Amino acid sequence: MVKVELPIVVVNFKAYAEAYGAKAVELAKRAEEVSKELGVCIAVVPQLVDLAKVASQVEIPVFAQHIDPVEPGAWTGHVLAEAVKEAGAVGTLINHSERRLLLADVEAAVARAKEAGLLSLVCTNNARVSAAAAAMDPWAVAVEPPELIGHGVAVSKAKPEVVRGTVELVKRVNPNVVTLCGAGVVEGVDVYMALRLGTKGVLLASGVVKARDPRAVLRDLALGALKALEEGGLS
Amino acid sequence: MVKVELPIVVVNFKAYAEAYGAKAVELAKRAEEVSKELGVCIAVVPQLVDLAKVASQVEIPVFAQHIDPVEPGAWTGHVLAEAVKEAGAVGTLINHSERRLLLADVEAAVARAKEAGLLSLVCTNNARVSAAAAAMDPWAVAVEPPELIGHGVAVSKAKPEVVRGTVELVKRVNPNVVTLCGAGVVEGVDVYMALRLGTKGVLLASGVVKARDPRAVLRDLALGALKALEEGGLS
Amino acid sequence: MVKVELPIVVVNFKAYAEAYGAKAVELAKRAEEVSKELGVCIAVVPQLVDLAKVASQVEIPVFAQHIDPVEPGAWTGHVLAEAVKEAGAVGTLINHSERRLLLADVEAAVARAKEAGLLSLVCTNNARVSAAAAAMDPWAVAVEPPELIGHGVAVSKAKPEVVRGTVELVKRVNPNVVTLCGAGVVEGVDVYMALRLGTKGVLLASGVVKARDPRAVLRDLALGALKALEEGGLS
Amino acid sequence: MVKVELPIVVVNFKAYAEAYGAKAVELAKRAEEVSKELGVCIAVVPQLVDLAKVASQVEIPVFAQHIDPVEPGAWTGHVLAEAVKEAGAVGTLINHSERRLLLADVEAAVARAKEAGLLSLVCTNNARVSAAAAAMDPWAVAVEPPELIGHGVAVSKAKPEVVRGTVELVKRVNPNVVTLCGAGVVEGVDVYMALRLGTKGVLLASGVVKARDPRAVLRDLALGALKALEEGGLS
Repeated sequence: MVKVELPIVVVNFKAYAEAYGAKAVELAKRAEEVSKELGVCIAVVPQLVDLAKVASQVEIPVFAQHIDPVEPGAWTGHVLAEAVKEAGAVGTLINHSERRLLLADVEAAVARAKEAGLLSLVCTNNARVSAAAAAMDPWAVAVEPPELIGHGVAVSKAKPEVVRGTVELVKRVNPNVVTLCGAGVVEGVDVYMALRLGTKGVLLASGVVKARDPRAVLRDLALGALKALEEGGLS
Repeated sequence: MVKVELPIVVVNFKAYAEAYGAKAVELAKRAEEVSKELGVCIAVVPQLVDLAKVASQVEIPVFAQHIDPVEPGAWTGHVLAEAVKEAGAVGTLINHSERRLLLADVEAAVARAKEAGLLSLVCTNNARVSAAAAAMDPWAVAVEPPELIGHGVAVSKAKPEVVRGTVELVKRVNPNVVTLCGAGVVEGVDVYMALRLGTKGVLLASGVVKARDPRAVLRDLALGALKALEEGGLS
Repeated sequence: MVKVELPIVVVNFKAYAEAYGAKAVELAKRAEEVSKELGVCIAVVPQLVDLAKVASQVEIPVFAQHIDPVEPGAWTGHVLAEAVKEAGAVGTLINHSERRLLLADVEAAVARAKEAGLLSLVCTNNARVSAAAAAMDPWAVAVEPPELIGHGVAVSKAKPEVVRGTVELVKRVNPNVVTLCGAGVVEGVDVYMALRLGTKGVLLASGVVKARDPRAVLRDLALGALKALEEGGLS
Repeated sequence: MVKVELPIVVVNFKAYAEAYGAKAVELAKRAEEVSKELGVCIAVVPQLVDLAKVASQVEIPVFAQHIDPVEPGAWTGHVLAEAVKEAGAVGTLINHSERRLLLADVEAAVARAKEAGLLSLVCTNNARVSAAAAAMDPWAVAVEPPELIGHGVAVSKAKPEVVRGTVELVKRVNPNVVTLCGAGVVEGVDVYMALRLGTKGVLLASGVVKARDPRAVLRDLALGALKALEEGGLS
């Protein structure tokens, strides 16, 4: 089975025109090439309808963009953790800022992911909400200040105190939880800084998906991760 | 391309344990066999993550369980009409009682389906809401009184006045819209009665998905449709 | 009891800092003065917590900003139609663009308003959604193109075709339903044009609430209504 | 100003037919009588439209059933913390199981309550979600296993381990946060047990609101609190 390793660069395809259907498979292959070349873990997060095909074509971790906190049953239009797992995902985003969940449903979705053998990556908007998410025992928390999403200034540059504060609060509430950060990540130095601030990786989307040369951006991001590893390892 | 014909039997796989992953493909093949044998249109509605695989394995209409009213863009965890279309669907449910949408989003989702070349099948809970749905110009409306869903007494038996009332109101508001009905449909006579009440087909789920012999149930349903056709044709 | 008459100017206090608590009562009194002086019906729509006090202090129609589609029962944090009625409201907004409801809940809320003796004013975003709303038999529909809300260019100037189209579609689907329009209304000529386009009134908020002199704006709006009445009466 | 003291009995009026309008004021007066007679803090939680009137007629703490996580502004149908405060509330429920909020909105609503000078009482469904809520620094958390709400078997009897586990987890994550419990509370012994399990009070609704003699039930509840206090004080 495909292994998830830290640090990790998680590439969210969202519902971008550049990254669904056949284009999703192509983009995932670029990520796989870079991951194999440089030895840095890169995960891809395609649309739900593309998940099975992408997962069958690459040997890097594939995450779902969302699961619902439901057991198998009469849940039309919902996303069942077990179906996502059978389709080839190793994990799932939960509570992305574009697909927020009720407090109780975040906890239930994390529990459902665990039961189905999926890693859960809960997205949050600040340090305090990250601490709350950590209390629900997910695999990882990714803090993304909403005002920075998609704006080209990395959270690790614009709000290093949010990143550092999140790392600390999460550690205090639940030291088993991995902290990532996102929003505005576009180049290697953003990953480098994110890791130096204590995170174990980044979550990004448009920086790769909408790049003229996604492969070049992915290489730059991975090199940023390698540089941080050389200098200090992961905390 | 796969053709949608009337009358139609639409089988919703929901998130049932019996109908995701490899089991979804198997069930869709049973539907395809019966459809080809008896010449009655049967559509299947698998989970989103199973949609592409099912669509690639059968030559009957495949519908999505849901689409979101969004254009391509930054919509993590949302279901893009274009992606559903590329995955092989010919249509989509919208506003199923287990996945209800805001009034304005029903209209926007119907419009998005149209733009992407998908048939839109809007689910409703009574005659008045069906009329409202018809005003938004979808391909079809399926009325399902929520208190009858999954309970084994067909709407066409238990509430014929709701079915007939819906057929009339929908026709008055928008004569181009197809009316289906659902809730409690489990056997041929339910389909027969639904068509005799003026609908063009049925929407069902557990009656087939949870049946010990889905193929036998599907044959019975299709025979009910054929009987109604013989007696009177479609109005 | 306070009478609702057409044409009507409906002033929504939203959650504006300028219009809650004691300030809500003051603003409602300004509306009452203008309404009595000029003989044009002006309704006010304060926050839910201010509704009872406002209704006890003025003799013009008071609407709630929202009701929930629920019967009396275990519905913490919901707004019961009967409680709104007892607090002194004569009607309620339903499905305002800032408080949208599920399709089925719009219909249920309209029905609940009727049962409790409240006028229902359903807000919509375009002509097609207005037609859908009209099919659910409310007292009135108010079309407000969302892109114009709060921006100072009146819908009756910027999109007369939306207003006219809504008036026609609503009339075709349900001739008993009153059509209003809103978004960007700030002065008398906006009301004048709205009425000349076939509506029976306007819904506005910031144009009055955030005005330096709300009384002067209210007089101007009422004079616009009177001018339209003189020229042609209501259709 | 009205003081909130521990232990506390919080009586939620929900949208019950027995407890809106004039009946809300009556019920609040019964609570006030018992509170003054026995010296136990009893808070009441009327519907939003009844809040101002209730708060003006009694000298016990009044809570809102809900606030929205919004600043003053264009938020039709939302509940502004400042307006609730001006109407006379000392606090507010947040995230009641019948009015659940998104994870990020719970945190924002708690922050808004604090800014407006309101105590925030966040409702939760299990120990882990309670820990998450505590991480967002509210005044109090009230755990209510949803399967016990309104069913007449008190959480303190049916699930003492949930209550004890919540008290411990909340204390570990944020020792400043008060823990209450609810669901099924109907008599003094339920309060007694809840306090003995480490909580500082109870949240209940139908047990009082639907009682033939609410005053008698309130006395019994308060006596249960006094008995626990005598035996051990609050931890």
